Amino acid sequence: MQTSPFIGELIGTAVLLFLGNGVVANVVLKQTKGESAGWIVITAGWAFAVTMGVFVAKAFGSVDAHLNPAVTVAFAVATNDYSHVVPYITAQLIGSFIGATLVWLHYSPHWAATPDPADKLACFGTGPAIRKLGANFLSEMLATLVLILGLAGISSKNLGELAIGVGPYLVGILVWSIGLSLGGTTGYAINPARDLGPRLAHAVLPIPSKGTSDWAYAWVPIVGPLVGAIIGGLFIRFFTL
Amino acid sequence: MQTSPFIGELIGTAVLLFLGNGVVANVVLKQTKGESAGWIVITAGWAFAVTMGVFVAKAFGSVDAHLNPAVTVAFAVATNDYSHVVPYITAQLIGSFIGATLVWLHYSPHWAATPDPADKLACFGTGPAIRKLGANFLSEMLATLVLILGLAGISSKNLGELAIGVGPYLVGILVWSIGLSLGGTTGYAINPARDLGPRLAHAVLPIPSKGTSDWAYAWVPIVGPLVGAIIGGLFIRFFTL
Amino acid sequence: MQTSPFIGELIGTAVLLFLGNGVVANVVLKQTKGESAGWIVITAGWAFAVTMGVFVAKAFGSVDAHLNPAVTVAFAVATNDYSHVVPYITAQLIGSFIGATLVWLHYSPHWAATPDPADKLACFGTGPAIRKLGANFLSEMLATLVLILGLAGISSKNLGELAIGVGPYLVGILVWSIGLSLGGTTGYAINPARDLGPRLAHAVLPIPSKGTSDWAYAWVPIVGPLVGAIIGGLFIRFFTL
Amino acid sequence: MQTSPFIGELIGTAVLLFLGNGVVANVVLKQTKGESAGWIVITAGWAFAVTMGVFVAKAFGSVDAHLNPAVTVAFAVATNDYSHVVPYITAQLIGSFIGATLVWLHYSPHWAATPDPADKLACFGTGPAIRKLGANFLSEMLATLVLILGLAGISSKNLGELAIGVGPYLVGILVWSIGLSLGGTTGYAINPARDLGPRLAHAVLPIPSKGTSDWAYAWVPIVGPLVGAIIGGLFIRFFTL
Repeated sequence: MQTSPFIGELIGTAVLLFLGNGVVANVVLKQTKGESAGWIVITAGWAFAVTMGVFVAKAFGSVDAHLNPAVTVAFAVATNDYSHVVPYITAQLIGSFIGATLVWLHYSPHWAATPDPADKLACFGTGPAIRKLGANFLSEMLATLVLILGLAGISSKNLGELAIGVGPYLVGILVWSIGLSLGGTTGYAINPARDLGPRLAHAVLPIPSKGTSDWAYAWVPIVGPLVGAIIGGLFIRFFTL
Repeated sequence: MQTSPFIGELIGTAVLLFLGNGVVANVVLKQTKGESAGWIVITAGWAFAVTMGVFVAKAFGSVDAHLNPAVTVAFAVATNDYSHVVPYITAQLIGSFIGATLVWLHYSPHWAATPDPADKLACFGTGPAIRKLGANFLSEMLATLVLILGLAGISSKNLGELAIGVGPYLVGILVWSIGLSLGGTTGYAINPARDLGPRLAHAVLPIPSKGTSDWAYAWVPIVGPLVGAIIGGLFIRFFTL
Repeated sequence: MQTSPFIGELIGTAVLLFLGNGVVANVVLKQTKGESAGWIVITAGWAFAVTMGVFVAKAFGSVDAHLNPAVTVAFAVATNDYSHVVPYITAQLIGSFIGATLVWLHYSPHWAATPDPADKLACFGTGPAIRKLGANFLSEMLATLVLILGLAGISSKNLGELAIGVGPYLVGILVWSIGLSLGGTTGYAINPARDLGPRLAHAVLPIPSKGTSDWAYAWVPIVGPLVGAIIGGLFIRFFTL
Repeated sequence: MQTSPFIGELIGTAVLLFLGNGVVANVVLKQTKGESAGWIVITAGWAFAVTMGVFVAKAFGSVDAHLNPAVTVAFAVATNDYSHVVPYITAQLIGSFIGATLVWLHYSPHWAATPDPADKLACFGTGPAIRKLGANFLSEMLATLVLILGLAGISSKNLGELAIGVGPYLVGILVWSIGLSLGGTTGYAINPARDLGPRLAHAVLPIPSKGTSDWAYAWVPIVGPLVGAIIGGLFIRFFTL
């Protein structure tokens, strides 16, 4: 069979969400081996989830390996080429739903063992530490702007050709950095697909005594990252990084 | 003397298990310097155990440095070449038994200091967080599938030649990722030799007031990884990653 | 628009402080997702803040990517070329003030949630674990000397050309090392801009029930690093590393 | 001035011990910022201490950058060339004494703040978790054997030329691995200079209410590593890794 950018984005985003939400499940659900293992585990888990999602996406045919509608939009703005936006985002949303479903399967004995519905939702979508939607929007916007500037830095023409293999690792380190430093407010979605696909999965899947999917918050991790991405894309375009 | 793939797989797997089960012993046994140091220590320890096992295996003559029957089977399926399967798996099982025995020697004063037999078994074989064999099998299968896809991604032809030294490190990061994100359910054997060799060592070695070796569970970390590996191998073959 | 060393130093230092003081805010402020996450989180966060600041600085036109007046002074002493000192330090101070302001914005709901003024100050400037200004000065001097020798080592002509992408990562590891090992006494400013810019921001910004900006201590993380940098620069010059 | 292998080994080992014992002081002494930060901090700190010691040693003229009499002996045995043994070990012992003295200076306000003399000794020499000298000797021997095999693996001719900058980082990862996995019994000296130089410093320096320097234990972290190194050197020699 043929690999393609669409398949690469889809499978890469599925791996990203399986590993990324997997570490949340490991730390937040009850009776796991990583229960309450803390922020270093959450952020390291998401970092390497990104690294591995990028490697898998590239192997399955996506040279770009965005795995994130905000990244797709930012580089569309930066290059003024919008041809990838719709197919990439479609693939990312499908992949993120599949990845969230795999987390649900993988941790199947632990849903019933976890009493608090908020803990279960946390294994799918993000939520704010202190609920103030304007400030939460600002957090997601700023953290995504750092993501885009960091990606521009890592792949800057100024630096020459990256050593093979180092690129996806450095993107993971960038996401580790954002999680450690800026994730404390909203749990750093910084990726509309990372939040929307799993939130849909939470709404649809049969999870024992689940609560609300908190759709009132769902626009924040979509619009915040997209606005941050557009600002970042304009930075790249006007400075030609 | 001559190095060879057989010697490389054997010594590399011995190093993998000595370091890998060593970190479990450090965290789980009593009166160690790393007692109760948590999931970040366990998963980092296993990650770098893999990196160092791969380096040592290559130096002693195994270019492949699988150290894992599931990896050997996956790449046999992917390439339709089964010639390495029997010698590699033999070497891996002998090496894993030796590595487990070295852990037993290295931590010798700490066995008697640790009262719970389950803690002692944990330094040899894996065990489930919640015992549901079907779900546990599924976990091992899915985690091993991610391992195989990740290895395919890291070594994909799409990416060109990896910088020397980065490859074994990235394989360690892949295993760190799986441990952080997917290890919460069954302790991520993802390697039949990693479980079977040490479980045999547990059954055979004179450990003060040890309990059962839990052979009823032993098939899960053998069959789960092998099924995941076959699925992963078919993915690689049909997509020619 | 044109990138330039001035813009690179300014934006790079803003990213450095946003991410660096961001991790302090995440761990020290109340009701964050990383509250009380510990020294490993603080030091990893600062390490990757440096890595990402360096990448961004280079992309925006600063090949040197010092982000730190002590580093600028050390390499001026080492090369006997003082032409960059004033513009770079100016850019670094402006950038550090902007970065600190972004932390204030990003964590806006958490300032009122945090009762202790000392915790709020810790998200801006550094402070000593035990207040003995002579010893604190010595700590900052010694830690900065290690920073300069480490930078000299990483970029030494003896080693040949670094693989692209590895350099900024290794500088992050150097700062992680200093944080883990030498940060226990004064919180390792090792950078006058890292302390002065944010301390000014603390004095100026409207932070709910903030206390003193502790200007009595402010000279230590300025003079200590500069003296360490001069000693380090002389080492490099006389040994031509 | 002229750099040289002797100066490189001396300054590199000083940096190694300053950073390495620095992290122990940070975690073990009272009222530090890293007090009780745990095993992940200790082992990460030692890992990056090694990486930075190696970079500095190379910059100051030691291409080998052993920083460890056991490594010097192992490669002397492996190559049957003993010409470096005496000068290197001399430089390493002087450097380790200087590094330990810098830790004493750097953490000067914290010695009086720490009541237990054993905590103070731990910032200089190593000590066993459970005191059984035979088992402790075996632990040091085995951990050093892994160190030598790992170094042989990282620098194996089988792998081709390492990317610049990755080598010292990987040596740090190797030491992180050993610390996480095998450090639980004796605190992984795996280096006679790492223990002897600081233990001498402990005996000589004026530390408030210090206790014994525990010379009865001092032979274990000297002889254990040297025996492990000789075995490892013979492995390398007979297999020509």
